[in-house]
Amino acid sequence: MIIELDMQSDVPIYTQLVHQIIEGIASGRLKPGEPLPSVRNLASDIGVNLHTVNKAYTLLKQDGYIQVHRQKGVVVHPEGMPPVTEDFLNKQLEELRPIVAEAICRGMTKDDLLKTVEHIYLKITQTRKE
Amino acid sequence: MIIELDMQSDVPIYTQLVHQIIEGIASGRLKPGEPLPSVRNLASDIGVNLHTVNKAYTLLKQDGYIQVHRQKGVVVHPEGMPPVTEDFLNKQLEELRPIVAEAICRGMTKDDLLKTVEHIYLKITQTRKE
Repeated sequence: MIIELDMQSDVPIYTQLVHQIIEGIASGRLKPGEPLPSVRNLASDIGVNLHTVNKAYTLLKQDGYIQVHRQKGVVVHPEGMPPVTEDFLNKQLEELRPIVAEAICRGMTKDDLLKTVEHIYLKITQTRKE
Repeated sequence: MIIELDMQSDVPIYTQLVHQIIEGIASGRLKPGEPLPSVRNLASDIGVNLHTVNKAYTLLKQDGYIQVHRQKGVVVHPEGMPPVTEDFLNKQLEELRPIVAEAICRGMTKDDLLKTVEHIYLKITQTRKE
């Protein structure tokens, strides 16, 4: 899997890493049980600090996306993904609100916004079937 | 307008401020031309650093949501909101992608996700009509 980081972005590098790994799983490019690079290797490959990769892996582990084995190393969680919980739905709501509010301010219609979300959903899941 | 900040959140305070003012405008609670507190007053009211408020106002001004007059002070932009630009749509896409990817990982259906976005859209715009 190719990790692309935007060093100019306001989004912290560890967050970008978390997002890319989650998108990799969502798209099926990263399969359950698939090994991920060690903290050290990934940090060295993409030229970032060990702590940055460590923070990303810690968050992914906390949420149940990956497992960190002392021997097997880091793998995409082999027994399926975390479910839709109330905490997750609340977090999702808080993340979506400012995006929706900005769309409204700029006069984007509800239908155009829904089409955009649908397009992204289909684009990510489309890779799964290829 | 009441500003509610979450000091425990990973979202920086200046970003929370930007989000709340944009949501205030989207919901119609903040009207075009309406005055906003000065940097100094807002910082003191909500107990944050002057620089934090300054950063939020600078971003809102850059995007065209507010105007900063030397005499009139800070006001919601009186001549309408910034339009849907290509830059905005790209930014929106980048913001939505990780949220959609996470929903897919957790097995949330496209329809459920679209319903959530629609619900937020209607909830924000509903205040306008009250």
